[in-house]
Amino acid sequence: MRKRLILTYLIDLMKIGAGEQMVRAPTTYLAHIFGLSQQSASRVLSELSDLGYVIKEVKNGSVWIKLSEKAKQEVRSYINYVLGAINHPGEFVFKGRVFSGMGEGAYYMSQPGYRRQFYAALGYYPYPGTLNVRLTDPIMIDQNKVLRMMRGMQIRGFRDKSRTFGDVKLYPAVIMDSVEGAVIYAERSIYGPDVVELISKHNLRRKLNLTDGTEIHFRVKLTEIR
Amino acid sequence: MRKRLILTYLIDLMKIGAGEQMVRAPTTYLAHIFGLSQQSASRVLSELSDLGYVIKEVKNGSVWIKLSEKAKQEVRSYINYVLGAINHPGEFVFKGRVFSGMGEGAYYMSQPGYRRQFYAALGYYPYPGTLNVRLTDPIMIDQNKVLRMMRGMQIRGFRDKSRTFGDVKLYPAVIMDSVEGAVIYAERSIYGPDVVELISKHNLRRKLNLTDGTEIHFRVKLTEIR
Repeated sequence: MRKRLILTYLIDLMKIGAGEQMVRAPTTYLAHIFGLSQQSASRVLSELSDLGYVIKEVKNGSVWIKLSEKAKQEVRSYINYVLGAINHPGEFVFKGRVFSGMGEGAYYMSQPGYRRQFYAALGYYPYPGTLNVRLTDPIMIDQNKVLRMMRGMQIRGFRDKSRTFGDVKLYPAVIMDSVEGAVIYAERSIYGPDVVELISKHNLRRKLNLTDGTEIHFRVKLTEIR
Repeated sequence: MRKRLILTYLIDLMKIGAGEQMVRAPTTYLAHIFGLSQQSASRVLSELSDLGYVIKEVKNGSVWIKLSEKAKQEVRSYINYVLGAINHPGEFVFKGRVFSGMGEGAYYMSQPGYRRQFYAALGYYPYPGTLNVRLTDPIMIDQNKVLRMMRGMQIRGFRDKSRTFGDVKLYPAVIMDSVEGAVIYAERSIYGPDVVELISKHNLRRKLNLTDGTEIHFRVKLTEIR
């Protein structure tokens, strides 16, 4: 079953109270809730249970069900995604915690071959360093995968005497609802999709008073970067 | 395509700003947003457009899309449903407007054959009359269809000298967050699923100061009525 379909069924089960407690859920009832035949409703329930989303028990000849922690977490995170679609249409909202990298960001950000292009794209020379943010919400990690596949502002790689530098993409962002900046993504990034690197005209750590572990949020405007 | 799947795609499109304005949506981009192959993403878009959910335009060789009013309305109403699942788990929340019926409710509510059973089920004799509420939100109308299929408190039909009276079901409800009552549903109801009839110990019109056209809301606890 496709993930997006699973989530809608989990929301239906949350609706009938299965997020809070064991609820009695005979197949006739589930069929009504899901808008399916009894046979299909029963198949959906088995699949949800096999996938670890639903805890099933039989008591006095009745089926009782409850959402697992995993299910509740995924529903919560999908609901945030849905709320984002209403409250921030045309934007991806990210939340994560600041962490220290290996200082590689500063090295790359200082390369004149990049700096010229950053200035042309952004209208300013970014502070020579990147702010690393680690995401934990699986929907935001997916969102970051999608972002990386988008066009963004293209920064070309180049070659100097000693080595070659790869292509980079920028996606304009507003950090903590106040500071203009950009997500920067290197095609050769050492980080997986659970990490986002931010740049700005400012030293973001100082400007926003951030230390390792601080939670921050930022928004990326999609209509500008397709 | 199943309705629940359609809604998730519409939410994705709202996310990228297509609820607000025409957005450029090349198939590569949509494929990322939907998490599908380009071919499947393109098929989904065609279906959404054929069903009147998405307005498509080609400008300078690019596809631009926007959600239709119908799409936005259905997404909004689904989002309310989803919010209900978080804010009122285990309950169906209904909203609608009061209207005057033909006085049939009062006639049925006065039958001793019913009154005895109402007292046994609810612990009080209801005011002899029903409050008619008309729903407009399609999700709430669906919700009402589901409610009618649930077991509820069973009130048996009976026969007196002149005629037979059909089975009735009661579903305990809280009206306007303050008054205890019940949704009453007659198997032989003359109303479609866009109407809910409420009863209570009180004359609800007087108690809650309601006139035709007043918007009211009420909650039905699902865990008690399966």
